[in-house]
Amino acid sequence: MLKADIDAFYADQASLDPQKYLVLKYYFESLVDPREAAAHLCQEMSTAQWSRVGVEEDYRPEFGAKVVELKVLDELAQPSSPFLASLIGKPYDKVYAVNATICYPYGNFGTKIPNLLTAVCGEGVFHAPDICAIRLLDIDFPDSYLADFQGPQFGVQGLRDMLGVYDRPLFFGVIKPNVGLPPEPFAEIGYQAWLGGLDIAKDDEQLGDVSWSTVRERTQRLGVLRKQAEAKTGEKKIYLTNITDEVDRLLELHDIAVANGANAVMVNGMTTGFSVVRMLRKHAKVPIVSHFDFMAAYIQLPWFGVKDQVFTKIQRMVGYDALIYPGFDTRMKASEEDVLANADACLKPMGSLKPMLPVPAGSQWAGSLKPLYDTLGTVDFGIVPGRAVFGHPQGPRGGAASLRQGWEAVSRGMTLEEYAKDHEELRLAIEMHSH
Amino acid sequence: MLKADIDAFYADQASLDPQKYLVLKYYFESLVDPREAAAHLCQEMSTAQWSRVGVEEDYRPEFGAKVVELKVLDELAQPSSPFLASLIGKPYDKVYAVNATICYPYGNFGTKIPNLLTAVCGEGVFHAPDICAIRLLDIDFPDSYLADFQGPQFGVQGLRDMLGVYDRPLFFGVIKPNVGLPPEPFAEIGYQAWLGGLDIAKDDEQLGDVSWSTVRERTQRLGVLRKQAEAKTGEKKIYLTNITDEVDRLLELHDIAVANGANAVMVNGMTTGFSVVRMLRKHAKVPIVSHFDFMAAYIQLPWFGVKDQVFTKIQRMVGYDALIYPGFDTRMKASEEDVLANADACLKPMGSLKPMLPVPAGSQWAGSLKPLYDTLGTVDFGIVPGRAVFGHPQGPRGGAASLRQGWEAVSRGMTLEEYAKDHEELRLAIEMHSH
Repeated sequence: MLKADIDAFYADQASLDPQKYLVLKYYFESLVDPREAAAHLCQEMSTAQWSRVGVEEDYRPEFGAKVVELKVLDELAQPSSPFLASLIGKPYDKVYAVNATICYPYGNFGTKIPNLLTAVCGEGVFHAPDICAIRLLDIDFPDSYLADFQGPQFGVQGLRDMLGVYDRPLFFGVIKPNVGLPPEPFAEIGYQAWLGGLDIAKDDEQLGDVSWSTVRERTQRLGVLRKQAEAKTGEKKIYLTNITDEVDRLLELHDIAVANGANAVMVNGMTTGFSVVRMLRKHAKVPIVSHFDFMAAYIQLPWFGVKDQVFTKIQRMVGYDALIYPGFDTRMKASEEDVLANADACLKPMGSLKPMLPVPAGSQWAGSLKPLYDTLGTVDFGIVPGRAVFGHPQGPRGGAASLRQGWEAVSRGMTLEEYAKDHEELRLAIEMHSH
Repeated sequence: MLKADIDAFYADQASLDPQKYLVLKYYFESLVDPREAAAHLCQEMSTAQWSRVGVEEDYRPEFGAKVVELKVLDELAQPSSPFLASLIGKPYDKVYAVNATICYPYGNFGTKIPNLLTAVCGEGVFHAPDICAIRLLDIDFPDSYLADFQGPQFGVQGLRDMLGVYDRPLFFGVIKPNVGLPPEPFAEIGYQAWLGGLDIAKDDEQLGDVSWSTVRERTQRLGVLRKQAEAKTGEKKIYLTNITDEVDRLLELHDIAVANGANAVMVNGMTTGFSVVRMLRKHAKVPIVSHFDFMAAYIQLPWFGVKDQVFTKIQRMVGYDALIYPGFDTRMKASEEDVLANADACLKPMGSLKPMLPVPAGSQWAGSLKPLYDTLGTVDFGIVPGRAVFGHPQGPRGGAASLRQGWEAVSRGMTLEEYAKDHEELRLAIEMHSH
């Protein structure tokens, strides 16, 4: 690129109207001078060609993405992916590891999720010249942008109001066997878990509307049993049914589920489309919960893809009320910092959008409560065990009770072991977990 | 896992009804014995818990994913991502690099794209225990599964019939300046490119329905000029407009575009949702074209994510008629093998689905034709240059002519340089490319 063309993709942030720009933060690795690489990135992700042949014009001032801050973090001997660097086919001595802040004029595409994704993580970004690794770390959305999004209909407060629970985390449980179990016994074990103290019995992300267990029959059975469990325990309960399906069946499944007494719906956002959830939000009568399926390839590597908090913000914008995401667990491959960053993206002020309940997931049990509470520093979160409830030696009723007892221990400042002395369900949970 | 539980996730493929299973091929890296790792993977991706507590039952025979072939490729001293391995928090001396073939009973979720994605690349797969890298390499769909999908409405033959072009690749051109140019001059340069010989003038993937260039106005202007270009050249032309937008506006934008004379629509599949495209296909009156935005994090690394041909097959199933995907170009970061595998997935027999036109993309020009033709071994492909047409020194008319001349050279067995002696547009294109 010519020097003047590079300069045209740089700006002083103070000179830009903050209500017209998204602020994007990227990490990237470049085989060439970072200043040129960042300009080239801006070119590819916005005004690839900024004038017609033979016409004096320049679309960059209004439509170009602009680097406002560039920081070389390191000069690496090897890129994070020598393979990707090799595909660029250019010799290199060293690789620059860079953080770039880019202001993007969102008028290029508007307040539309698919077009936003194309702009900030589409071809232009992942195929920018001489960049051999790139990760979108964060997006700051101005209030003018957020104003077009409904956000959560219920949010944390709405979920708490539905359950009448204000002073502790919310206990979700994934009904297991997750796949194969017919609706009648499936509903029965959900009911048992409610009796034991579970707040929200939910379908596994793999269980949808299938011939051997339709959403209609599951929600009929669990809708009836939910009311029985509420009468018996004096507590409010939620059945969260997974309506993930082809988009043209989603609203119909929502309506069936709600009419039958399911009082929350889950949609796997990334597999169905965030835009689809935005559509569902306009129609929904109950809270919508997200599961993180199909997000791993974006979020797992620290030098590549998209940091999860970006997706978390987008999911809050489109209207999810609760977000199930990878939590602490060796199987989940998420760092403590990620778990916290996502919780912040759920809970911290964001325009006028309500907070969304963070539910960090992964092979949880009663013992997962204290580390999460310590890290997040709030009771505004959920946990979502599966086998710890439905594989508990006493069955789901005992499994659910062990969660409540686990929290009682935390809230009294006791160790699980101490509290388990008088609480058999917790004692068995500890024993089960240690195997 | 107990040995009996590991064994329960293995089967002889010959014993399974091929019409009830998808055949999945994975590459993975494991810190533990591959046989156990593959069984654990199957457990996580299907029947995580296969019986209720205290009930004699086993959902694995009918609902479990089953390893039918396991091949240790190598024992690595280091995993492809030491970072991901470290998150597992388990010491290791070596890492097993493995190919596994897994038969998945699709009755678990049915012929639904979002649920398919959850099963084959959801939490279970990317969060399987002790696996520190995984890539879905391929899916073989039985005819019983494919029978539920419409596939391309037009396909390669339909696109050729629309254009009356049967003996050469199809020439797409991305109208540039891609962002910022108002509809009137935008339409004018598209028109010029048609006059020069372009088949399909298209919107950039970044250009949607925006206040400064609505789909309504663009399609009105280009609809009129398309007919003029057809009258003037005696050739049929296509205007491919990008209707990527929030899902609840997609059918309306299709209808506006078609009524105005746009005769193909583009939808960025991954940003909008493949299921949304399946919905659009049921409604569409014109060919639907895919762009590969937002796919990079899945497809770029050879040891992680999803190989592009998987997405290519899915996109053919949901009904795309043409697929724009990363082609040969250092910016595109795709290997020759990938480009060919995707073309095969577009063109080779797949149930009764029509072939879909492969359009390998990336900073193309007249000189891109011969290497692509040589690699693909067929004229059934498209190229999709932008700046080579719209930044040509003579403008879009000359740029489009240079493509046609480039193909004339190939079809006569001449070098570009030879043929350029009598063809000024091609000569200038060569000169432009060498700078």
